[in-house]
Amino acid sequence: MDISDNTRISVLIEALPHFHNVTGKRILIKVGGELFESQEATRTLVTDIASLRALGVQVVLVHGGGPQITRMMERFGKEPCFIEGQRVTDQESLKLTAMVMIGDINTSIVAALNSYGTPAVGLNGTDGSMIEVVPRDAALGFVGTVKHVNTRPIISALESNYVPVIAGLGVDESGQIYNINADTTAGKLATALEVKKWFLLTNVKGIYSEFGKEESFISVTDVVGLIKLRAQGSLSTGMIPKVEAILGAVKGGVDSVHLIDGRIPHAILLELCSDNGIGTMISKV
Amino acid sequence: MDISDNTRISVLIEALPHFHNVTGKRILIKVGGELFESQEATRTLVTDIASLRALGVQVVLVHGGGPQITRMMERFGKEPCFIEGQRVTDQESLKLTAMVMIGDINTSIVAALNSYGTPAVGLNGTDGSMIEVVPRDAALGFVGTVKHVNTRPIISALESNYVPVIAGLGVDESGQIYNINADTTAGKLATALEVKKWFLLTNVKGIYSEFGKEESFISVTDVVGLIKLRAQGSLSTGMIPKVEAILGAVKGGVDSVHLIDGRIPHAILLELCSDNGIGTMISKV
Amino acid sequence: MDISDNTRISVLIEALPHFHNVTGKRILIKVGGELFESQEATRTLVTDIASLRALGVQVVLVHGGGPQITRMMERFGKEPCFIEGQRVTDQESLKLTAMVMIGDINTSIVAALNSYGTPAVGLNGTDGSMIEVVPRDAALGFVGTVKHVNTRPIISALESNYVPVIAGLGVDESGQIYNINADTTAGKLATALEVKKWFLLTNVKGIYSEFGKEESFISVTDVVGLIKLRAQGSLSTGMIPKVEAILGAVKGGVDSVHLIDGRIPHAILLELCSDNGIGTMISKV
Amino acid sequence: MDISDNTRISVLIEALPHFHNVTGKRILIKVGGELFESQEATRTLVTDIASLRALGVQVVLVHGGGPQITRMMERFGKEPCFIEGQRVTDQESLKLTAMVMIGDINTSIVAALNSYGTPAVGLNGTDGSMIEVVPRDAALGFVGTVKHVNTRPIISALESNYVPVIAGLGVDESGQIYNINADTTAGKLATALEVKKWFLLTNVKGIYSEFGKEESFISVTDVVGLIKLRAQGSLSTGMIPKVEAILGAVKGGVDSVHLIDGRIPHAILLELCSDNGIGTMISKV
Amino acid sequence: MDISDNTRISVLIEALPHFHNVTGKRILIKVGGELFESQEATRTLVTDIASLRALGVQVVLVHGGGPQITRMMERFGKEPCFIEGQRVTDQESLKLTAMVMIGDINTSIVAALNSYGTPAVGLNGTDGSMIEVVPRDAALGFVGTVKHVNTRPIISALESNYVPVIAGLGVDESGQIYNINADTTAGKLATALEVKKWFLLTNVKGIYSEFGKEESFISVTDVVGLIKLRAQGSLSTGMIPKVEAILGAVKGGVDSVHLIDGRIPHAILLELCSDNGIGTMISKV
Amino acid sequence: MDISDNTRISVLIEALPHFHNVTGKRILIKVGGELFESQEATRTLVTDIASLRALGVQVVLVHGGGPQITRMMERFGKEPCFIEGQRVTDQESLKLTAMVMIGDINTSIVAALNSYGTPAVGLNGTDGSMIEVVPRDAALGFVGTVKHVNTRPIISALESNYVPVIAGLGVDESGQIYNINADTTAGKLATALEVKKWFLLTNVKGIYSEFGKEESFISVTDVVGLIKLRAQGSLSTGMIPKVEAILGAVKGGVDSVHLIDGRIPHAILLELCSDNGIGTMISKV
Repeated sequence: MDISDNTRISVLIEALPHFHNVTGKRILIKVGGELFESQEATRTLVTDIASLRALGVQVVLVHGGGPQITRMMERFGKEPCFIEGQRVTDQESLKLTAMVMIGDINTSIVAALNSYGTPAVGLNGTDGSMIEVVPRDAALGFVGTVKHVNTRPIISALESNYVPVIAGLGVDESGQIYNINADTTAGKLATALEVKKWFLLTNVKGIYSEFGKEESFISVTDVVGLIKLRAQGSLSTGMIPKVEAILGAVKGGVDSVHLIDGRIPHAILLELCSDNGIGTMISKV
Repeated sequence: MDISDNTRISVLIEALPHFHNVTGKRILIKVGGELFESQEATRTLVTDIASLRALGVQVVLVHGGGPQITRMMERFGKEPCFIEGQRVTDQESLKLTAMVMIGDINTSIVAALNSYGTPAVGLNGTDGSMIEVVPRDAALGFVGTVKHVNTRPIISALESNYVPVIAGLGVDESGQIYNINADTTAGKLATALEVKKWFLLTNVKGIYSEFGKEESFISVTDVVGLIKLRAQGSLSTGMIPKVEAILGAVKGGVDSVHLIDGRIPHAILLELCSDNGIGTMISKV
Repeated sequence: MDISDNTRISVLIEALPHFHNVTGKRILIKVGGELFESQEATRTLVTDIASLRALGVQVVLVHGGGPQITRMMERFGKEPCFIEGQRVTDQESLKLTAMVMIGDINTSIVAALNSYGTPAVGLNGTDGSMIEVVPRDAALGFVGTVKHVNTRPIISALESNYVPVIAGLGVDESGQIYNINADTTAGKLATALEVKKWFLLTNVKGIYSEFGKEESFISVTDVVGLIKLRAQGSLSTGMIPKVEAILGAVKGGVDSVHLIDGRIPHAILLELCSDNGIGTMISKV
Repeated sequence: MDISDNTRISVLIEALPHFHNVTGKRILIKVGGELFESQEATRTLVTDIASLRALGVQVVLVHGGGPQITRMMERFGKEPCFIEGQRVTDQESLKLTAMVMIGDINTSIVAALNSYGTPAVGLNGTDGSMIEVVPRDAALGFVGTVKHVNTRPIISALESNYVPVIAGLGVDESGQIYNINADTTAGKLATALEVKKWFLLTNVKGIYSEFGKEESFISVTDVVGLIKLRAQGSLSTGMIPKVEAILGAVKGGVDSVHLIDGRIPHAILLELCSDNGIGTMISKV
Repeated sequence: MDISDNTRISVLIEALPHFHNVTGKRILIKVGGELFESQEATRTLVTDIASLRALGVQVVLVHGGGPQITRMMERFGKEPCFIEGQRVTDQESLKLTAMVMIGDINTSIVAALNSYGTPAVGLNGTDGSMIEVVPRDAALGFVGTVKHVNTRPIISALESNYVPVIAGLGVDESGQIYNINADTTAGKLATALEVKKWFLLTNVKGIYSEFGKEESFISVTDVVGLIKLRAQGSLSTGMIPKVEAILGAVKGGVDSVHLIDGRIPHAILLELCSDNGIGTMISKV
Repeated sequence: MDISDNTRISVLIEALPHFHNVTGKRILIKVGGELFESQEATRTLVTDIASLRALGVQVVLVHGGGPQITRMMERFGKEPCFIEGQRVTDQESLKLTAMVMIGDINTSIVAALNSYGTPAVGLNGTDGSMIEVVPRDAALGFVGTVKHVNTRPIISALESNYVPVIAGLGVDESGQIYNINADTTAGKLATALEVKKWFLLTNVKGIYSEFGKEESFISVTDVVGLIKLRAQGSLSTGMIPKVEAILGAVKGGVDSVHLIDGRIPHAILLELCSDNGIGTMISKV
């Protein structure tokens, strides 16, 4: 592409203060499992992470694994069973979940980051009893609620200059592993790690004040604005639990949460490099 | 048990100098996957590790996973295929191996150690490109040979006071995971980590100069003695690759390797607490 | 001695948590002067101290010198004179006391520890004005009461990895030396040094609830229990001042005081390595 | 300006690796005195320096003062006198030079940087005897040649997170101040400070292989290429001393020297943010 | 000079405790510009500073420049204009002041100290926005009042073992330089730097309770005494602003201010080495 | 005493560079036992040590005890016995020597220093096996020759800001104490401690080139000069062993040895504060 000096300087002069804003700071990126099914999406995510680290940003990556788990369950002939939207998780489902999340997805992301020159290590809730949970509801089986986050394994990885790649599984006092909601977990981690920004990558553009109307798209809002939208019933049902996690994180001390479309290449850099960004930013005030 | 003061002092006076010998030092324990199928064996191993740490010893744990992998392969209807004793590993077998080794066994050991009060984190060869491999032989598929060990993730875990629990899988430059021999890997790690002692837990008592003759059992030998035994053809075939790994480690700087029967409760403490121990110790000179 | 593996593990599994309890902690051992008149007793005390240090324990040794001082006084033809059980100490007696305690006993213990491979340095109350006293009673002459303990010389020795060997003499503001009660001094030092355990070696087994009845021996008690015994008048008169010092130390923050028979070889290790020990342990609650 | 996401990402993806290249590194910027006569040029220079520091770059600024000195001389009615292109500097001229360079220009740059939020301190060759000189030629008066650079005052300022702003005057052993060539001095400082890049801002675009022919402009060359050009006589006479200084710096360990047109706004960022830059880069090989 | 051993010991025994009093402490010396017009006075001041540093004293030097500025103004044909004792400072006067103070006097002192072997660096109020001011009175032009002192550039110089030599000019938020009263500035710096002693060198012997009467000379007084003198109207008008600055410094935490006659060779050492000194010491109580 | 300003400055200007010379350095002072029999001499020695410490000098004090030991021997009715000038030392004499040197003299000096406000601790050759010896000659009994000096206990005391007060007794590998020559020991300590200056206090003024002739007194000499004097036979017999120790120390790295008359009050300060001093200085070249 042939780009003029004026354009270059305009882009840089707009971007550099935003970048400076996160230099030496910690951010958390939450990505769903589906992103890692595309090699190209994995590649641009990995280069964005490398760029942020080059700017002196501490990056923590939390991933889900929904589609991959479902496929593995099917292979084992297990039929999904839900109670009020929560998947019932028996002993065998849990074992398969752990194997897919930790032994397959997490390991692959770690290997990809390292092979692209970004040192990374894999972590999950059992490492150093990092994510302590209690059972959510006996009927649901091994589904947990986060009780406490022990950040030491993550901090230790960051201090050794690794990107911690976290599979969101929890563990109880007896050493039993549990399935937990990945967005909620990411929010708790963001709070516990005192990150400056949490990038929550989904497959929508962001938040709209009127569902379905492009012109009602919200670039920037704050806690009060988001609570008002929730009260008005303007949010899609799929968005509700995410919004809860976002409100928790911002109230818990995170400067801003960025809800962005992970399918756009370099979504994180684009959100970060201009005044408006590409998704919805929710800030404290 | 009613134990006299004289007996107590005899045991302690004999044991304490041996313990002192490893205080503030690093040791590596290699255990096969089968040990973790017994809860009682897991429990005494975990308490031995806790005792060693209480004495100021840095412990690194490396585990295999043979039986568990085989069972999973069977569930998937995959038939094992061997070339000259080496298991041929195709893409799917490898994926299953990674899921079992990392997502199941490694995670369970980490959870067990933590639940018993011994902080631990799980690691595998992809973390920080820790165990770099090259393919061993195209016909074998994803079976690798260790080219380089990067100890940083392990050192980082030790410095944060965690027991690193290592699943012995390797990774190549492109981020591809590989299956590798667990004993060989443990030996390479022992050398790279400059450990003082490597405890190699198996299901035999140790080494005999004449196979099958109890009175020919060897309590203590050295590199020269072991090479002589190998030359005499006195070793069982199953022992040959272990002996290669042991010789490599001792030549590489490990003070002594202890080949002991992991089925004996508290095997490590017993090997360590008396002048003769319970297995075969191979030292430098 | 032929000891079974089960016995070894029983001894170790019972002992290790107790040892772990003092690893990295500070303890104080008070011994009377008579112990050092036996070479064998000196030797087992010195090996116990070496064992404790090998386990990472910081050891402080305080000694008396009664019998040796008495002998030196006799050689000089000085007759002992007592007022209500306190020895009257004139200028010359004091000088002889200092010479025996510091120039003979202390120096010999230091030399013995060093020659057995345990680095030690000698200290007394004048070093860095370590034990500041005021006169107790003009009629008693140079007999002092501890006013303040300055721990810096002791801490400095510990930080340089020496066993501080302390002759319990005090000093007043003008630089005048004073004789002081060794048990009381040890208790004050134990408090000031914030030690975890104080081992008080005497020539009795410990405390009995009924004087002379073996079956009334007390293995473990606490401050309340000891105060009750004192109130009941169950204690021998010789024990009263020791009990005062013990109560002061435990109230002052020492976790437990161990009153044991110093004539038993390895008395300290034996008291420490089992749940009951061999003497009387007085703990906080 | 309306800039597309694609353009933004193109600019950033091209720029970030170049920026990363100097993150945590030290660079030196040499600017002539004339630049500071334009408020706008001062402002864009200052923002470029701020941007570089935000990226974690250590910036050292060296300035000249030619036009300002000449004007002050004229005000004092002093006529310039040259011997072979070197200005003869008598006692009074020297005093005026010091007053203008240090008391006027240097102080103004420092005040400007600070007022824009970039902490800076002023330095000159007398501070800590930073730039030690010997007289160049008796006939020239107080004109010196750099004998030794003592980097401590500069390092100390950098460690306190200040931009050192350096007026290039030297000092001899007796404390006598001297005038020195600013480009040569900048080169010596670049070498002594082991900077990664030296930006030499002038009022030409860079170097041409054929003087006056735009199409012969050289974007990138190396020591060998530059020596060849000098041998061919392709360089303008004004360029010769600069080229000597450049060759000295690159041979002295500076990774690359960037000869750029300081009149272009944001010249430094533009040179740095793309593969070709806007001026001539001279690298080691 | 032939000096007896008794005399030497008397001098030293009197001097050493006073010297010890400032060992490892920070002091500030304020000198008028006129002192530096005498080479001999400069030399003895510099050797006193060297002696103090040899004793482990941290020395900060603040200088004025009155006579030199006046001469430069005359050379430029500028007539001084005063409003109520304050010199009106227009743009050009200010520029000349900065050039003389920073580019001439400050640089010469720094060069002199360095050439005598005492490492020094020059500083002025613009360095790191060190002395922040607001305009005093619009009618006076660029005359400022100190609003805040940022000590970092001075501390940084001291930590690098340099004598900071400070030209007392201030700077406002926009980067505009201002003229400020040197005594007042020195007092503010003394407070901000938490110095133990401030030596204020003038051309009088010190303070008299009755102006002109030698026998009323005051060697030692305190804040209360000084306030009383001021209330009695016993002070000369020239002394009033100095006294304000002194009171401010002592109330601000400076242990003592020493008003001494800078024309006496080695005035600082003489004031410091005996119980009475040579000038007037004003202490806290 | 009424001392003029000129005299004060002369004394200080002469003294300060000499003091500066030892600021932050280590010196060793050796004093015979007789000095401590005078309270006044003890007091001026202690104040000199305090003055030196106030100047930042690290002081190590080594003492003898000849007269006191002799008196104690007489009290015990032991007759001195010499072989070729060396005192034969049997078991009982040795015990008395240790008691007097360590328990009496050393303890008294330590108490005196502390009571004058100079923190001190006592040391002797057994502390940390500080002075290791071998027997000199079987016929002499417990008389040793220094084999090795272990400086750790001394360094540790200095680092804790104590004056180490050293009783020159040695110890062999078995923990047996030995008598050793105090001057020789001081010389070995001076070398091992890498002191800058060793002050050797005796009861003569210093060294004369012709015995008994005041005008032949030598203020300053060096190794070559001293060897020449020894070769000429100009030295008194009592001086010979001191000269051997001095030559050993200077060759071993001590900058200068100062042989001075300890009976002169403040002898050390007087030797140090002027160019000539009061005794004989022996330097390296």
